[in-house]
Amino acid sequence: MWIPKRVSGYTAAEMRAKAADGSPIGVSKWELDTPALCVDLDKLESNLQTLKTKLASTGLASRPHAKTHKCPAIARLQLSSGSIGICTAKISEAEALFAGGIQPILMTTTNVTASKIARAMTIRKKNPSFIQAVDHPRTVRELNDAAKAFGVRADVVVDVAVGTRSGVPPEQALALLQLVDKQPNLKLRGMLSYDGSAQHIKGFKKRYDETLRRIEPNVQVFEAMKKSGLNAEIFSGGGSGTYNIVTRIPGFTDVQAGSYIFMDAQYLEIGGIDNEEVFTDFTPSLTVMATVLNTYFPNRLTTDAGAKALTLNQPPAIVIGEPNFKYNAGSDEFGAITYDKANKKYEVGDRLELIVPHCDPAVNEYDVIYGTRKDKVETVWEISARGHSQ
Amino acid sequence: MWIPKRVSGYTAAEMRAKAADGSPIGVSKWELDTPALCVDLDKLESNLQTLKTKLASTGLASRPHAKTHKCPAIARLQLSSGSIGICTAKISEAEALFAGGIQPILMTTTNVTASKIARAMTIRKKNPSFIQAVDHPRTVRELNDAAKAFGVRADVVVDVAVGTRSGVPPEQALALLQLVDKQPNLKLRGMLSYDGSAQHIKGFKKRYDETLRRIEPNVQVFEAMKKSGLNAEIFSGGGSGTYNIVTRIPGFTDVQAGSYIFMDAQYLEIGGIDNEEVFTDFTPSLTVMATVLNTYFPNRLTTDAGAKALTLNQPPAIVIGEPNFKYNAGSDEFGAITYDKANKKYEVGDRLELIVPHCDPAVNEYDVIYGTRKDKVETVWEISARGHSQ
Repeated sequence: MWIPKRVSGYTAAEMRAKAADGSPIGVSKWELDTPALCVDLDKLESNLQTLKTKLASTGLASRPHAKTHKCPAIARLQLSSGSIGICTAKISEAEALFAGGIQPILMTTTNVTASKIARAMTIRKKNPSFIQAVDHPRTVRELNDAAKAFGVRADVVVDVAVGTRSGVPPEQALALLQLVDKQPNLKLRGMLSYDGSAQHIKGFKKRYDETLRRIEPNVQVFEAMKKSGLNAEIFSGGGSGTYNIVTRIPGFTDVQAGSYIFMDAQYLEIGGIDNEEVFTDFTPSLTVMATVLNTYFPNRLTTDAGAKALTLNQPPAIVIGEPNFKYNAGSDEFGAITYDKANKKYEVGDRLELIVPHCDPAVNEYDVIYGTRKDKVETVWEISARGHSQ
Repeated sequence: MWIPKRVSGYTAAEMRAKAADGSPIGVSKWELDTPALCVDLDKLESNLQTLKTKLASTGLASRPHAKTHKCPAIARLQLSSGSIGICTAKISEAEALFAGGIQPILMTTTNVTASKIARAMTIRKKNPSFIQAVDHPRTVRELNDAAKAFGVRADVVVDVAVGTRSGVPPEQALALLQLVDKQPNLKLRGMLSYDGSAQHIKGFKKRYDETLRRIEPNVQVFEAMKKSGLNAEIFSGGGSGTYNIVTRIPGFTDVQAGSYIFMDAQYLEIGGIDNEEVFTDFTPSLTVMATVLNTYFPNRLTTDAGAKALTLNQPPAIVIGEPNFKYNAGSDEFGAITYDKANKKYEVGDRLELIVPHCDPAVNEYDVIYGTRKDKVETVWEISARGHSQ
C-alpha cells in the first residue's frame, strides 16, 4: 500500500506561522498548498532595478501603481528602489497601504461621494504626502469643504482624460485646474493623464505612435497650465507598456507603471523596442502553483486552478516548461490543459507552475503572496488591499 | 457652495458594527459604499422555496453547492429549507463551512495530496456527516490509510466523469467503486456525476436531450453498482440548469444546484421549460451596487465596478431599470456603460444596481454580502470561504 510520507501542501496559516520569526522560511514553493501565488524575489528585484536604470537618464521618476500588487511590502521595496510615490486606484487601497506604513500615496481615481471624500481627508490629515485626483467641479468644491472641515490644505491633481473612461476632457481641463487653484483649502500639484488602453497595443512602433498621438491634447493642457502660472510640478501617467514612450512627452514627470514588477501573459505578447514579438524589458516573476487533479483523459490534464485562481483574462496562463500546453481557466474551480506533446508523464498530485494571464486581477484573488528565492519561500506577504474594490 | 450632507457610503466595517446587536440594520442598500454585493432576502427565500416545491413531487432531494455562496449563513438557510446537505468544491471551503457550523458536507472534488487528505480527515474525525469524493485508485488507498491513522471509517463517494474534466471514466468506475468498498476504513456511500457543461446549454429541449444523453454511461455504472450489491444510496449531480432534468435519471437521489439562490445574467439566458428565451424558474436576487464616476462623454457612463467587482464573465452585467445600457467590465477598476437611451440624466455619484454576469466568481471577489429586504439592509453575512480556492 502507498503510504503518504510528505506533507506536500503547506497552507497560508502554516506558512504565516513559519514566517513569524522573520527569518527565511526555506520551504520549497513546490510544497505549498495550491493554488498558491508566488513571486520570484530575484526577478522582482531585477524588474525594480530595470525600471530604475531605464528611467535614470530620462529625467522621469516612477510612481508605481499599487492596484497591481495591493501589498504594502512591495510598495516599500518600490520606494526603497527610488520610486517617488505609490499610486492607488481606490480609497480602500489607499487606506490599506497607509495602514501598512506607506506615506507618499497618489490616489488616481476621483472620490465622488461624501463618505469617500471624508475618508480621503482622514488619510490626508495624518499624512501630508497624500495626493488625490479630481475631475469634476462638484467634487472640487466638496473636497475643498471637506479639507476645511478637517483643517487641512489638501494636495490635488486634476485627472485629464485620455480617451473616455475617467478624467475631465482636455477642453474643459484648464477651467477645472483654475477652479482647484482658487480653492483656499486645496493645493494644486499638477495633472494626471493615464492612457489605460495604450498599454496593451501590440507592436512597439504602433504603441509609440498611438500613445504620443492620443496624449497630444493633454500636452496642450499642460502647456496652458504652465502658461497660466499654475503649479505644474506633476504631469503623471504611463504604464508598463508605455514607460519608455512617455519619456518623449514634453513636461512629463513620472510613470505609473504597475505590472512591470510581475509581468504576465498579456504583457509578454505586446512586444518591446528590441523584440517585436515578445516584451522582454521585464522578467515574469509572478506565478501560480497548481496541482494536477486528473490524468485519465488522453491529451488532457485537469488542475485545481480555474477562473477563481487565474481569472478569465486572455491570453491564457502559460505552463512553465511545457510550451505545447494550452491552458483553459474557463471553469471556476478547474483548469483544463490540452496538449499534443508533454515533456513528462503527469500523475495526479504533480505540481505545475503557471504565468498568470493578467497580474492585477489574479493577485486580487489571493490573501498572501509567497516571496521565493531559488524556489524556496523566503517570506509571506499579506495582500492587504485584496478585494478592496471600494 | 455645495456642502455634502449625507454619509452615502457605509463601509463593511461600519455595517458590521451596526449588525453587531443582531437586529435589522435599516440602512438603505443605496447608501452602501460601492461596489457592494447585495442579496434580496425575499427573492433568496422565494428561490429556496421554489426548489423545494419543484423537487417535492419528484423524490429527489437537494444538496446545494456552496461554491456559489461560500457563506455559512446561506448554507444554514438551505438546510433549514429542507436540503439534505451542502456541497463544497475545495477542502478550504469545507473547513470554512464546518467552522461556520455546517455539518452535512459533501466535498465533490477529490483531494490528491497528503496534506489535503489529512485536512479532510481532520474534518471527518469531528464531523460524521462529512462525505468526500474520490476518483483514483491511489487516492482511495491514501484515504484509507489516512482514515485508519485518524481512527475513523470515512464516508466516500466515487466521482464518475461526465465529460473529461474530473472523475473516473465510466468504464473504469465499477472497479474503483469495488476498490473503495474493500477498504476497511472507508464506507462507500454511492457516486457523483456532475455535468458542469450541461448547465448553460441554451434552450430547454436541447439541454434536456444533451443532459440525458451524456449521463447514460453513468446510469449504467449506477445500475452495475446496485447489481454488484454495493451501497448505492447516493447518486448525486445536476445543477441549477438541469435540476428539472436530472429527475428523469433512474436512481438519481439529489441535485447539487448552486446558482438557483442568486441567479445571474448567464442563467437568465439559458431559457426554461416555460420560456424558451429567459430562464424564469428562479428570480435574480444577487446584485452589485455601483457608483457613477464619470458623465462627461456623450452616451457613456463610467462606474466604479470593473472586472475586480464583476469578473470578465459574459453576458455582461445587467443594469436594473436601464434595458438599453450595455455594460463593459473589461477594465479592472472601472465599468464602462454605453447607451443610446437612458431613463434619467445621470450625475456623478449616482448609484446603479447590477445583476452580475456569473454569480460564483463574482461572490468570490467580496468579503461580505448584504442581505436586504425592501432595499433596507437587514443583515451582513461574511463570505467565509471567499478566496478559498485551495
